[in-house]
Formats: sequence, structure tokens, C-alpha cells
Amino acid sequence: MPNREEIAKWLKELQKHICSELEKADGEALFTSEEWQRPEGGGGISRVIQNGNVLEKGGVNFSAVHGAAPSFLFTEKEHSTQKETANNLTFYATGVSIVLHPKSPMVPIIHMNIRYFEMSNGVHWLGGGIDLTPHYVNETDAKFFHQTLKQVCDKHNPNYYTDYKKWADDYFFIKHRNETRGIGGIFFDRLNASSEMSFDKNLIFWKDVGMAFAPIYTELINRNKNNAFTETETEWQLIRRSRYAEFNLVYDKGTKFGLETNGRIESILMSLPPLAAWHYNYMPKANSPEEKTLSLLKKGINWVD
Amino acid sequence: MPNREEIAKWLKELQKHICSELEKADGEALFTSEEWQRPEGGGGISRVIQNGNVLEKGGVNFSAVHGAAPSFLFTEKEHSTQKETANNLTFYATGVSIVLHPKSPMVPIIHMNIRYFEMSNGVHWLGGGIDLTPHYVNETDAKFFHQTLKQVCDKHNPNYYTDYKKWADDYFFIKHRNETRGIGGIFFDRLNASSEMSFDKNLIFWKDVGMAFAPIYTELINRNKNNAFTETETEWQLIRRSRYAEFNLVYDKGTKFGLETNGRIESILMSLPPLAAWHYNYMPKANSPEEKTLSLLKKGINWVD
Repeated sequence: MPNREEIAKWLKELQKHICSELEKADGEALFTSEEWQRPEGGGGISRVIQNGNVLEKGGVNFSAVHGAAPSFLFTEKEHSTQKETANNLTFYATGVSIVLHPKSPMVPIIHMNIRYFEMSNGVHWLGGGIDLTPHYVNETDAKFFHQTLKQVCDKHNPNYYTDYKKWADDYFFIKHRNETRGIGGIFFDRLNASSEMSFDKNLIFWKDVGMAFAPIYTELINRNKNNAFTETETEWQLIRRSRYAEFNLVYDKGTKFGLETNGRIESILMSLPPLAAWHYNYMPKANSPEEKTLSLLKKGINWVD
Repeated sequence: MPNREEIAKWLKELQKHICSELEKADGEALFTSEEWQRPEGGGGISRVIQNGNVLEKGGVNFSAVHGAAPSFLFTEKEHSTQKETANNLTFYATGVSIVLHPKSPMVPIIHMNIRYFEMSNGVHWLGGGIDLTPHYVNETDAKFFHQTLKQVCDKHNPNYYTDYKKWADDYFFIKHRNETRGIGGIFFDRLNASSEMSFDKNLIFWKDVGMAFAPIYTELINRNKNNAFTETETEWQLIRRSRYAEFNLVYDKGTKFGLETNGRIESILMSLPPLAAWHYNYMPKANSPEEKTLSLLKKGINWVD
């Protein structure tokens, strides 16, 4: 089994590093920090920024929790063979989770999560991903975002970008709206060892994903934070945020895991937007930037060629 | 089997009646009306009011849908014996669903749903309920609301109010916040015939619930629409609305049913608030009206003695 204390320690350092970089990029607000304990085992450090110059609301959360393994952790296949013993299994999960809602509709929302998971039967894996949710899809930024993630992946495995980009398209999908949450990114789960990549090599890839976050987002902030906008863009931002809330409350597995394992509610739901709007039957005007954005919230768009 | 066309026709009339009464109470805005078809069978009429004098956003929806019965319709017990035949079963569901978000934080949010359900194997039942979500719990209004529902119930069965009030407390509960959505009301499901009440008698009770809606809510509007408020109350209203959105997206079975049976999204999600706020770790001030309201968002409060 990997050294989980070492992984958790690295994640805590990553949290510090990212908060410090984001404070510099914001230029005004500072992160608060709250330590919390989970009654059933473990705890975390929630760091939140609010009402900044750039960041309206966001969190960079570290957690390391453990306890009895909930049955939904098992895949269908595992379930049939392991459910009898499930009651005796314990799990350990540690990760860093980030969601940032910028004040300006011209700056994208971003999400990152990297996590390490293990069960007392020896099963263990890495998961993670970064995805971007621009209120307005700017194609140059979208290419930069995907190209940078591709570079991170390509350093480790020639298939990872293609595979994990597809996984992100499928995962960050608001089925009932038939639209993706944003322009995707990469997403992977249950990564262990394969014929070509040892767990340790995957651990290095996984750390590189974590380290890619701050430079990517500060670049996107700096590119867009001074772009002018009006009420129209702000109203659209509130609508896109409501779709973000729908995804997180209806589909997101991390949120579900947190709610079902009695996690700290305010840390789990820090991902929800500071303000969001639901209009009945809203339709963007023909040929508007809003309509163009909707047309790009689809699976399978190739941003790297 | 009951005459489902007659029930659906009655529900359509109820929709008209309620919209007309709400337009009078609002005094400004009118309901729009949209007919929609469900590709898999059936359809509905969505009626929506927006930006009124009293009502900021709300819907009074009628639907009558049918098709292959989704497996989640079966109870655990039924599931084991019926899952083999589930593929061949069809369902029919007709109902009226209402959620109204008032502009003023001093006027409560209200919800009603009454529905009739049947399956091709002859199983059929009635369900429904009315519940109230005041942004600020006013105890006089809460008593009026529960007392009126009790009178409706008592006309038909001496146990219904007690049983269905408890059911509402349990159902309209935001588990992850450990708070009820509002002050409850009544909720019932799978009501058919019992030793003391025939289906036809329950149908009359069910219709009485539907008819109670308009007088109850217009009374609550008239009592509160002219009450003064400031930014503080509006901010709190946005927070309470975000809890409403959480309940509907995470727990509500009607929403889940709609999303899983490919219902019309805008009709299902008309229940979501026009604007909602999520602050990180919001705590009301000690001894504030907001704190008092939170203290009353608990199960098991007796409002009728």
C-alpha cells in the first residue's frame, strides 16, 4: 500500500501553495482557514475566499477522512462478491477539492479535485480532474486550457489526454439539459497500476495535475479580469451558475459522497455559487454570444488540433 | 379502476381555478400557458407567472403522462415479486403541481401537488400534499395554515391530519442541513382504499386538498404582502431559497420522477427560485428573527393546539 500519510501531507502543501497563488492573483481578498473533525473519523481544512477583487466565492479544501466503507463505493462487479464483507471494510480518502466562482462573468469558473482512496482490503486508487466552466466560451482560452492539460498528460502517457478528456465530457454532463457543464477538461478515477504504468508513476502524473492548477487559472484570470461587461453578461452569469448548482446537487459524485458520508456540509457545498438565477424557459437571442456559448457546451469538441 | 379521464379533467379545471384566484391575489401579472407533449406519451399544460406584484416566479402545472413503468415506481416489496414483469407494465400519472416564490420575503413560499397514479396491473393510488415555507416563520400564520389543513383532513378521517402532518415533516426534510424545508403541512402517497375509507371517499378528500389551496394562499398573501422589509430580509430570503433549491434537486421525488422519466425540464424545474444565494458558513445573529426561524424549522412542532 502507498504511504497515505505522505500523500496527505503533500496534498496539504498543495492546498497552501494554491491558496497563496490565488491570493496573489486576486490581489485583495485572503483565504480564511477552518479545521474540522468528522465524528466518524478524520477531518479537514477548509479554506475559503469571498468578495475578492477577482474571486467572488471559492474554496480550496483539504480533507482526510476514514471509517466504515459505504456500499456505494463498490462497483457493480465488486458488489456481488464483496457485499457480504462490506460491513467489515474501512476506507480512507484524502484529497484537495477546489471550486472558484469569479466576480466577473468574463472570467471562467474552475474546478479541480484530486483524491487518493484506499480500502482495508488493499484496494486503492487515485482519482482527479480539472474542468473549466466559462460563462462565455472564448475559443482561444479553451484551446490554451486543453492544450495545457494535454501537455501535462502527454508527459506521462500518450493516451491519458484523449481518454480523460472523453471521461470529463461524459462526467460533467447535465443530462436533463442535454448540455455539458462547461468545456470539460480531464477526469479520471480508480487509477492504480496498468501494464504500462506503475502506481508510483501514476502518482507522479496525479501530482502534476495538482501542480498544473494554479498556473492555468492565474493565466485565465489575468487574460480576462479587465474585460468590460454589462448587466447582460451578469444576468447570463447567474443563469450559468444555476446550471452549475444543478450539476453539483443532482449529479456530482463528490457532493454525493460528502452528503452520504456525513461530511462537513459547508465544505461540501462551498462549490455552490454565491448567487444564481433560474428564469422560466430562458432562451438566448439568436446569434448572441450566449447562444454561441450554448452551442459549445457539447461533448466531443476537439480543442487541441 | 377509477375513471382517469374524469380525474384528469377535474385537475385541469382545478389548474384554471387556482390560476384565476392567484391572478386576482397578485393584482398585476397574468399566467402564461404552454402545452407540451412528452415523446414517450402524454403531455401537459404549464402555466407560469413571473414578475408580478406579489409573485416573483411561480408555476401551476398540469400533466397527464403515460408509458413504460420505470422500476423505481415499485416499492421494495413489490420489486422482488414484480421486477420480472416490470418491463411489460405501463403507468399513467396525472397531477397538478404548484410552487410559488413571492417577491416579498414576508410572504411565504408555497407548494402543492396532487396526483393520481395507476399501473396496467391494476395498482392505482392517490398522492398529494401542501406545505409552506415561510422565509420568516410567523406563528399566527403557521397556526392558521395547519389549522386549516386539519379541518380539511378532519372532515374525512380523524387520523389523516396527524398522520399526514408527520409524513410532511419527514418528507420535507433537508437531511444534510438537519432542518425542515419549511413548517411542513400534509403529505400522503399511495392512498387507495382501507378498511374505513373507500377509494372514492379518499378521492373526495384528495379533491378537497386541491380546493383548499387557493383560499389558504390568498389569505397568507393578503395578511403579509404589505409588511415592510429591508435588505436584511431580502438577503435572508435568498438564503432560504437556496435551501429550497437544495431540497428540490437533492431529495424531491417529484423532481426525480420528472428527470428520470424525461419530463419537460422547464416544467419540472419551474419550482426553482428566480434568484438564490449561497454564502459560506452563514450563521444568523444571536436572538435575530432569522435565528428564531431556524429554530422552528424542526420536525414534530405541534401548530394546532
